[in-house]
Amino acid sequence: MTVTAPGKMYEAGVQAYAATYWDPGYQPAETDLLACFKVVAQAGVPRAEAAAAIAAESSTGTWTTVWTDLLTDLEHYKGRAYRIEDVPGDPEAFYAFVAYPLDLFEEGSVVNVLTSLAGNVFGFKAIRSLRLEDVRFPLAFVLTCGGPPNGIRVERDKLDKFGRPLLGCTIKPKLGLSARNYGRAVYECLRGGLDFTKDDENINSQPFMRWRDRFEAVAAAVRQAEEETGERKGHYLNVTAGTVEDMFTRAEFARELGMPIIMHDFLTAGFTAHTSLANWARRHGMLLHVHRALHAVLDRNPRHGIHFRVLTKALRLAGGDHLHSGTVVGKLEGDRQATLGWIDLMRESSVAEDRSRGIFFDQDFGHLPGMLPVASGGIHVGHIPALVSIFGDDSVLQFGGGTLGHPWGNAAGATANRVAVEACVLARNEGRDLDRDGDAVLREAAGHSPELHAALQTWGDVRFDFDIVDKL
Amino acid sequence: MTVTAPGKMYEAGVQAYAATYWDPGYQPAETDLLACFKVVAQAGVPRAEAAAAIAAESSTGTWTTVWTDLLTDLEHYKGRAYRIEDVPGDPEAFYAFVAYPLDLFEEGSVVNVLTSLAGNVFGFKAIRSLRLEDVRFPLAFVLTCGGPPNGIRVERDKLDKFGRPLLGCTIKPKLGLSARNYGRAVYECLRGGLDFTKDDENINSQPFMRWRDRFEAVAAAVRQAEEETGERKGHYLNVTAGTVEDMFTRAEFARELGMPIIMHDFLTAGFTAHTSLANWARRHGMLLHVHRALHAVLDRNPRHGIHFRVLTKALRLAGGDHLHSGTVVGKLEGDRQATLGWIDLMRESSVAEDRSRGIFFDQDFGHLPGMLPVASGGIHVGHIPALVSIFGDDSVLQFGGGTLGHPWGNAAGATANRVAVEACVLARNEGRDLDRDGDAVLREAAGHSPELHAALQTWGDVRFDFDIVDKL
Ligand SMILES: O=C(COP(=O)(O)O)[C@@H](O)[C@H](O)COP(=O)(O)O
Ligand SMILES: O=C(COP(=O)(O)O)[C@@H](O)[C@H](O)COP(=O)(O)O
Repeated sequence: MTVTAPGKMYEAGVQAYAATYWDPGYQPAETDLLACFKVVAQAGVPRAEAAAAIAAESSTGTWTTVWTDLLTDLEHYKGRAYRIEDVPGDPEAFYAFVAYPLDLFEEGSVVNVLTSLAGNVFGFKAIRSLRLEDVRFPLAFVLTCGGPPNGIRVERDKLDKFGRPLLGCTIKPKLGLSARNYGRAVYECLRGGLDFTKDDENINSQPFMRWRDRFEAVAAAVRQAEEETGERKGHYLNVTAGTVEDMFTRAEFARELGMPIIMHDFLTAGFTAHTSLANWARRHGMLLHVHRALHAVLDRNPRHGIHFRVLTKALRLAGGDHLHSGTVVGKLEGDRQATLGWIDLMRESSVAEDRSRGIFFDQDFGHLPGMLPVASGGIHVGHIPALVSIFGDDSVLQFGGGTLGHPWGNAAGATANRVAVEACVLARNEGRDLDRDGDAVLREAAGHSPELHAALQTWGDVRFDFDIVDKL
Repeated sequence: MTVTAPGKMYEAGVQAYAATYWDPGYQPAETDLLACFKVVAQAGVPRAEAAAAIAAESSTGTWTTVWTDLLTDLEHYKGRAYRIEDVPGDPEAFYAFVAYPLDLFEEGSVVNVLTSLAGNVFGFKAIRSLRLEDVRFPLAFVLTCGGPPNGIRVERDKLDKFGRPLLGCTIKPKLGLSARNYGRAVYECLRGGLDFTKDDENINSQPFMRWRDRFEAVAAAVRQAEEETGERKGHYLNVTAGTVEDMFTRAEFARELGMPIIMHDFLTAGFTAHTSLANWARRHGMLLHVHRALHAVLDRNPRHGIHFRVLTKALRLAGGDHLHSGTVVGKLEGDRQATLGWIDLMRESSVAEDRSRGIFFDQDFGHLPGMLPVASGGIHVGHIPALVSIFGDDSVLQFGGGTLGHPWGNAAGATANRVAVEACVLARNEGRDLDRDGDAVLREAAGHSPELHAALQTWGDVRFDFDIVDKL
């Protein structure tokens, strides 16, 4: 037996990353986790070296050779930068594709994946900016995750509502209402025709309305609206809290009250707490509405951050039944084609690469059910034809100001939205083109709905036309 | 009694945000939470309107008037944009200062604060980019938070180590070692002279090394090194997990093993889980090392995101005993002056406004203990004089590659670092200027330490000189 002297195998010092981590001939395996980064390197750093540095620091490597590399099979464990592409319209940037062997990641933990892929590499001096554009989760990883607690089909069964988008409303003002007034606002919206009302993302348990009082007032409102309308109704009870213990106490109480749905801010609360909450919801058949506050901090800059499609996939794995998707047309930014891409990622069981929608990889979600995209943020009746055309039936359309700001109050605002949606769905089902005839469809419906007429008078021409910062 | 007709008080429709939320004469109250945003508005949007829109959407308002505003005292609850300033060197951007009444936030919940301040506003179409530069947490809020579980003074007492920076090492390769080899690497580092070793941020519980095996192997290594050296030693056992239940199972086992310190990735795991873990650590007198993977996604772009000083403050409130701070000199970016600013925010009990270090507000931390800044990322012996000069004694200097990459192995790498730090501390205590004489101090020490000599030979001239993307 020959024992190689360590001195022979181990040369201390600094090597180019590309020597170990750039492998342009590599054919990704089906079980590899794949990532596409948009990179702007510092002047003088070659593309292959920058790509390899990313592959190294997000997998096994560091800035210098270490003797302990000899104690494992680096060829098996290392990430590999395997492709580089130009970025259309941005000559400074390039796309770097990296393949990671599945063994690098803990089963069922999107936290672990994000820590590797969106960790130290973003701070590298040798790189000016970095954006994680897309991730292909191999099916073998997907199936270790819990996924949406209920999914679209189960939710429709539970609610007994089919063939149209669901309708919601964020209660406003965002902060400052007492529990009793809050419950009153909820009741008015629900009896007026909405399916859901919603806590705002920052409604947790403030002095003006403690969570338990809110839950009780809302439960009474939901029950009363259900009795009067004969329909199933729900309010997203926001269980987001500063600690896990408080989060679960709130979720448990929602369940004791017999409420069908709770809500969580998955990004500001974080994936660890969120995954546990999704598991809880799955165990109890509780619907889980997910708000994405903080997403625009991460995803809006075209050159630096994490694209929303990655956050969408991560959430679908960790678990959620509704996820805010943006509206394209409302007050908050969302490129149309990119939005169509991440809506697919929420609903479809497999999505093929489609660069025209920003999808860089085929993605198979296996048996994981779909999530309802939630269009919300500065939308009103005037947007409904466009929303029905963009989102189709399997969605929630949510009007906060666009319900509560109705000149005759919430119930009228709710009715206006319900009438408009049903008119648009009917028109579409009859073969009319909502993108062309939408305004006419609304006008006709307003002829027999004074509530819709008043809503159109109030907001018909309010538009949010600004240059898009993150164009596809 | 006169009842005012609703029509008199409530006018439906869209108003300028500035009409309600821009209040340039406002004098912030001591209990207000203050925020400074760097804003780039869309063309044609006046600064005051953009600032007011941010104040509105991050507090009580939405895009249209709602009748439910009448049900509360908006004057009491609304946020106010109260000052606008030019941004030096960036004519397109401006600083907007917003004051929020304390009643808007749930006690002890940084999650709640971030959801308001870093939520929807970042996606506003009317704004091109937005950065949360700084937040002044009023003392009345600070004292509702748990803060660092132990703090610097208690940690030094527990470890019985005083008067010098502590020394650590991230075990490399980042991924792929078996538990037994891992423990061996830990032991070598600790017996060689380091105080701590550390799991990498993405070491959770992968197939190549399950967490329980790692914890056991590491505990044996720590005990053996303690016996041999007569010093207290520790290894940051990373308890980061995909779920809260797994996180706590891991933390509990570390405690059962009698280990002094655990570790958490506070950003990828999220603040809800982190705050619960910090509470647990406080209850059990366990030291809590905090890694900041993901921070550069949030904080590196100079125009969009959340500044690291805000994340630092939030973590000090939620709780941590060590926090990665960057190194200035290593492989990962960190502006020198800005770094000095957030080191102060980690350690001092009150920090005064100091624009030269990027501190926009006076910040009082009350009785909350300080956290040790951890300098880590591409540093080696050659950087030690600079590190001692930048960080002083109350810090942890951490060399991963810079220990394990030593040509004679970890123990020699550890010794080189220990000798270099002690030499620098002694020289400084004798009145020498490390910024000027640092190289000489190292050379002298290398005269009686072959390990240090070999380390300097290997890396002495490795530098990471790149243009800084986020200059103060
Ligand atoms: O304020 C809201 C809606 O109220 P309104 O309808 O009055 O604008 C938010 O919850 C946004 O929907 C969040 O946006 P995203 O869901 O797109 O993240
Ligand atoms: O890889 C690391 C250190 O290894 P090495 O010493 O081999 O570079 C990381 O944990 C960085 O320290 C993280 O950086 P920040 O904590 O500063 O973000």
